[in-house]
Amino acid sequence: MDTAKTDRSSAPLSAEELALVDAYWRAANYLTVGQIYLLDNPLLREPLRPEHVKPRLLGHWGTSPGLSLVYAHLNRCIKARGLDMIYVCGPGHGGPAMVANTWLEGTYPELYPSVNHSEDGMRRLFRQFSFPGGIPSHVAAEVPGSIHEGGELGYALSHAYGAAFDNPDLTVACVVGDGEAETGPLAGSWFSNVFLNPVSDGTVLPILHLNGYKIANQTVFARISDEDRASFFRGCGYEPFLVDGDDPAAVHRELAAVLDACFDRIAEIRADARSKANGSPVRPRWPMIVLRTPKGWTGPSEVDGVPVEGTWRAHQVPLSGVRTNSDHLAMLEEWMRSYRPEELFDATGAPVPELLGLPPEGEARMSANPHANGGLVLRDLVLPDYRDHGVAIEGHGRTVGEATRVLGSWLRDVMSANPDRFRLFGPDEVESNRLGSVFEVTDRQWQAEILPTDEHQAPHGRVMEVLSEHLCEGWLEGYLLTGRHGLFTSYEAFIHIVDAMFNQHAKWLDSSGDIPWRRPIASLNYLLSSHVWRQDHNGFSHQDPGFIDHVMNKKADIVRVYLPPDANTLLSTMDHCLRSRQYVNVVVAGKQPALQYTSMEEAVRHCERGLGIWEWASTDGGAEPDVVLACAGDVPTLEVLAAADLLRKRLPDLKVRVVNVVDLMRLQPDSEHPHGLADREFDTVFTADRPVLFAFHGYPTLIHRLTYRRANHDNIHVRGYKEEGTTTTPFDMVMLNDLDRFRLVMDVVDRVPGLGANAAGLRQEMVDARHAAREYTREHGEDMPEVAEWSWPG
Amino acid sequence: MDTAKTDRSSAPLSAEELALVDAYWRAANYLTVGQIYLLDNPLLREPLRPEHVKPRLLGHWGTSPGLSLVYAHLNRCIKARGLDMIYVCGPGHGGPAMVANTWLEGTYPELYPSVNHSEDGMRRLFRQFSFPGGIPSHVAAEVPGSIHEGGELGYALSHAYGAAFDNPDLTVACVVGDGEAETGPLAGSWFSNVFLNPVSDGTVLPILHLNGYKIANQTVFARISDEDRASFFRGCGYEPFLVDGDDPAAVHRELAAVLDACFDRIAEIRADARSKANGSPVRPRWPMIVLRTPKGWTGPSEVDGVPVEGTWRAHQVPLSGVRTNSDHLAMLEEWMRSYRPEELFDATGAPVPELLGLPPEGEARMSANPHANGGLVLRDLVLPDYRDHGVAIEGHGRTVGEATRVLGSWLRDVMSANPDRFRLFGPDEVESNRLGSVFEVTDRQWQAEILPTDEHQAPHGRVMEVLSEHLCEGWLEGYLLTGRHGLFTSYEAFIHIVDAMFNQHAKWLDSSGDIPWRRPIASLNYLLSSHVWRQDHNGFSHQDPGFIDHVMNKKADIVRVYLPPDANTLLSTMDHCLRSRQYVNVVVAGKQPALQYTSMEEAVRHCERGLGIWEWASTDGGAEPDVVLACAGDVPTLEVLAAADLLRKRLPDLKVRVVNVVDLMRLQPDSEHPHGLADREFDTVFTADRPVLFAFHGYPTLIHRLTYRRANHDNIHVRGYKEEGTTTTPFDMVMLNDLDRFRLVMDVVDRVPGLGANAAGLRQEMVDARHAAREYTREHGEDMPEVAEWSWPG
Repeated sequence: MDTAKTDRSSAPLSAEELALVDAYWRAANYLTVGQIYLLDNPLLREPLRPEHVKPRLLGHWGTSPGLSLVYAHLNRCIKARGLDMIYVCGPGHGGPAMVANTWLEGTYPELYPSVNHSEDGMRRLFRQFSFPGGIPSHVAAEVPGSIHEGGELGYALSHAYGAAFDNPDLTVACVVGDGEAETGPLAGSWFSNVFLNPVSDGTVLPILHLNGYKIANQTVFARISDEDRASFFRGCGYEPFLVDGDDPAAVHRELAAVLDACFDRIAEIRADARSKANGSPVRPRWPMIVLRTPKGWTGPSEVDGVPVEGTWRAHQVPLSGVRTNSDHLAMLEEWMRSYRPEELFDATGAPVPELLGLPPEGEARMSANPHANGGLVLRDLVLPDYRDHGVAIEGHGRTVGEATRVLGSWLRDVMSANPDRFRLFGPDEVESNRLGSVFEVTDRQWQAEILPTDEHQAPHGRVMEVLSEHLCEGWLEGYLLTGRHGLFTSYEAFIHIVDAMFNQHAKWLDSSGDIPWRRPIASLNYLLSSHVWRQDHNGFSHQDPGFIDHVMNKKADIVRVYLPPDANTLLSTMDHCLRSRQYVNVVVAGKQPALQYTSMEEAVRHCERGLGIWEWASTDGGAEPDVVLACAGDVPTLEVLAAADLLRKRLPDLKVRVVNVVDLMRLQPDSEHPHGLADREFDTVFTADRPVLFAFHGYPTLIHRLTYRRANHDNIHVRGYKEEGTTTTPFDMVMLNDLDRFRLVMDVVDRVPGLGANAAGLRQEMVDARHAAREYTREHGEDMPEVAEWSWPG
Repeated sequence: MDTAKTDRSSAPLSAEELALVDAYWRAANYLTVGQIYLLDNPLLREPLRPEHVKPRLLGHWGTSPGLSLVYAHLNRCIKARGLDMIYVCGPGHGGPAMVANTWLEGTYPELYPSVNHSEDGMRRLFRQFSFPGGIPSHVAAEVPGSIHEGGELGYALSHAYGAAFDNPDLTVACVVGDGEAETGPLAGSWFSNVFLNPVSDGTVLPILHLNGYKIANQTVFARISDEDRASFFRGCGYEPFLVDGDDPAAVHRELAAVLDACFDRIAEIRADARSKANGSPVRPRWPMIVLRTPKGWTGPSEVDGVPVEGTWRAHQVPLSGVRTNSDHLAMLEEWMRSYRPEELFDATGAPVPELLGLPPEGEARMSANPHANGGLVLRDLVLPDYRDHGVAIEGHGRTVGEATRVLGSWLRDVMSANPDRFRLFGPDEVESNRLGSVFEVTDRQWQAEILPTDEHQAPHGRVMEVLSEHLCEGWLEGYLLTGRHGLFTSYEAFIHIVDAMFNQHAKWLDSSGDIPWRRPIASLNYLLSSHVWRQDHNGFSHQDPGFIDHVMNKKADIVRVYLPPDANTLLSTMDHCLRSRQYVNVVVAGKQPALQYTSMEEAVRHCERGLGIWEWASTDGGAEPDVVLACAGDVPTLEVLAAADLLRKRLPDLKVRVVNVVDLMRLQPDSEHPHGLADREFDTVFTADRPVLFAFHGYPTLIHRLTYRRANHDNIHVRGYKEEGTTTTPFDMVMLNDLDRFRLVMDVVDRVPGLGANAAGLRQEMVDARHAAREYTREHGEDMPEVAEWSWPG
């Protein structure tokens, strides 16, 4: 197998073009070094002095020249071909190179007018980088054209593919660092091309930036053979092109030729697929590029007697002692002057006019492409009325329904109404999570072989299923960041797989909220089903409700957690989430047949309030209760209601109040979260001094954490998941964790004073009932009918 | 490129051998179906009746026949070749097949005597599976021979490689499901062969089980071309062998031939590498197998008019209505009888003697291999005295040291003393986390090209560095589960990448603790450096101390979290962790130059107690203080001491007590955690009613969560990370989060009553000091010298 390699003699660059692209690259490199090192003297009008240099050198040079090389060449191609392109920059700390390019092409000065094309603007550009009050060293939200911060390695390629879906004219150039390429999430992203439709989606052009080193080590891809590397990428379905060199002129020619070949090929693939699109799957062999150039290219080749350029030592700052070591200072000046700034910038500090002839103009600039500021192109979803999908209930807690199946019927209509801007992502769990109604109107998108026995597989569809939570999350993030909408459905326990990805996205949302030119994007919506209480059959390894704990550590401005107890509240909640902007919404809901508690109207009101007293289940007659039974989550709600039923039969004088919580954020004080209840309201619902038994879906500590500032906190006793479980039955699962109705009744007896002898007998009965339930389960392998079939007596 | 394919005519199986291996496979399949379906009538002595069938059918048939096929064939090879082999079973829900095989070869009956080779034993075997009080459907800790539960897809191959390191005679057969192969972590594991030394490590034989389907979808690897698949695996450095078929006899012959070829090749590679081992890197092209057989092979081919065998419908139970649908019941009986049980089991229910001739005996059985019960082969670490590495301090809080660098010098000696049983794992961060001293005695292990400019790279070494937290974690878990020791060092923020892997390992430890024949293994040790407070230069995206919150959700029996404030306490803590068994230990420590607070002797005593009053920093004279300043973590400790210094100068009459916490678990009640302090002790340290200002390394809510049951909880005011940060200076980071010394002094003024007018002035001074510090930083790009250079006045 051959790696495609172009013939250098047929290179497409004229001498003038080569000179221009090289000048542009030198300018970007100069501006990059300046950002890393300088506080002042940006044009080197005078010899460098220590006081011109930053006291803390925090930038990363190593990856920068390669990033700028690609940028300059892509600019040429955009202009020559009229491409609609964005640039996803994978390598961490690529910030200074990307900022340099956005400054050169004028977007940065437009958005940050004080950092303009002038000597003073250049001084500000340099000073602000990695400086207190300035900008980070990553390609963070502050950088125009970025949808991917980098730094947490592994997500560049999935973000790029997410951006390409449903953007048929877009090309996403994605530079993947060779360090990043070692990570699991990135390694799992190459096969995204199995899902990308050449007719209705755009194109991703992956560029593996093989500069050979990470922080302190060589990289795997740099040290395997050229044959193996090419074989790997062919195996992933690409046509790999190699550009390899360390002589700038030769590399310019070679890269230009390879890029021309790639864009020709992409145009050909698109035209071909679109001319004969007949519904059969086509998985074209898209091109990709392996770009092998030295790490820290054009920087100091040797410092203090050891090689730097082309080694891992070029990763951060090649010269570290510039303020104190005059040799280093001289080398820095020599290095910067090697780019011949006098040819690149005029006397005012602006790029010379010739340079500005390279990049395209207006929104054709990658840094100004509206797709990379997704809120600009975001269109609202057309949302059919969810009320039309509601479950008609015959009395509270008496009708059985499957919450996610009901949701699925509404999602089907959402898909029909939004064929160009909404997708559902799932790790092979859309059917399992009972959202299968969507397949009445769409399919799973898939470009590889489809067999006659397959179902709901097609080259174009709105459902993205792959057995990788990382890919689902990365694709969805890329899709949202480019102005579309989506929903990720997963098993609750395994959403922890993307904890770190959620972190980065939440931080991105938080940061971008402070940037006026970034427009709000659609929220990242999670539907977690197959949750902890219904993993009795999958066993202990599948039981973990802790994602919501993780989420709650992020800023209150950003995160929302909902636990709708039934189908109608789930519909109302999800409608709310799909309309929202700039949040992460986590919705936990059951998929199993379960009792339905609210009519559609009640559900709407209940969700609007976020929590509320269920009077139909309470016996306090609106007065101060003896005990509050609170619940959040479908299974805890069931157990609380069953306990309330027992209590009103067996202790008819006891005044019980049942409170259900949908919006977990309501539990916090209003000083902590915008959804928080004021203390007075909280005390009105939960009382100021009565025992509160709180049956919670997740780990009990979360409820304490949310309520510890409330007056009645010391009286709040929480039951939830406590890491007890195995393969058993649903009711045994709640018993193992002391969340069951019998245990809750025991808790009431233990905590409400003055219940008398009757209560002691009831307590013993509960102990016996637990024992009997356990025995029955062990013998029959299923739950006792009187437990499994309980419903609210009405 | 050709996929190696053996010539079927030269197949190595005699007719008798073929008949035997097929009979063994049929027996395993029979036992698998029995486990999934039957409560009774295990030998089908009478026609199947509905009451013989389990009420809830929870097993997974789809992957099972392939797993058993591999098992039977590996048995033949072990016996023929005297191999030392274990079997890592990647596909989730492979439990019934693996249990069937361990039962057949006799290990299961030895460990669980009631589940013996008899009709009654077989009945118990069937009944217990996925039944309350029974065993899970995964290859959980209960299954002898397992080191990998499966079910959370993606970690099989990294576990397999971890098991192979430093086990030169071991072969780890690793079946990877083709669904699992789509996940990022698995995709990133193929290149583990770049790290496996053919001389001093064992061998992993990956077997991609290409049965074509996941839960509800086809798989990527099944629908790309044979050429691309082979190209992919060659690109990953393997020699792929394809076994493809659906005729049992033909597949038996082909698989036997391919396995013989693989084991020949492995023997050749080992012999070759070991005969001429000369220190040069050798990366042999190890064999791997692609096994393409139908999903649910030998099960019902069609049910209710739709195809099942060879489709995704075979994933779980192919016949779901057996108790109510007499056709299904008849099909089940026909299916089970198709294995001809009468030929396989004698009248007592025991496997016929011929069958027992297939597997090897004793510890040669994969289910009895001691490597798969790591505690059996675990040898204690030889631990040099860490006290010899302590930092000599000249007064408390006056000497500067780098905690992790000091630890590195001890780890170097640990490595020297344990050249066969201890490894350090890190995602390219060992140098960055300042543990570089280890390279004085060892190298990073690496089998691909090594250039003259590389440092500390060698074919054999004790340090494993790859830019994938998933691989580091998976390798280490595999290494620990097979009875060795190790340490994983990572940036704090990015350890969230392995949240889900930690979950599974913690659950494995929890479950295996209840299994008497599983011997305790060494703890999983994390050293998190480059922590949240020292990511000022990397910015907001690198700031997250939430891993400890995640860890704290697991069982108290399993998890430990330590925050040593300086080098000597870090040494003492790590010595304790490396001696421990069956825990997950999380240690958070700084790598930057920082003040040292404890002498070696004090550090030992302090760590033994887990927390304590620092009298040298307190002004309460042993009496009841006016305020308690508590701290956990190196940076919070610094800020608390600086605040205490300010207070004793400016409010000399104020009685301040300084408390430092190393072992976070001490904060919990003793009813909650074995390390928990009794309430009386807690109150003695933290007082019952005085204001406590707690400066904490992580999110403040964790301290509330740990202390909410304490008498003085309402007086505990916590400062910690609150998701504020950017690229700035260290002191600006603590100011942004209100954890700085000045803010702490303000908190004291605000919370201690009766301080008088002097205090109000002090408060304003603190406000001004914060302002001045911020201004200085913005102007100079570094912290004010009086802040940065503060030390305890002694």
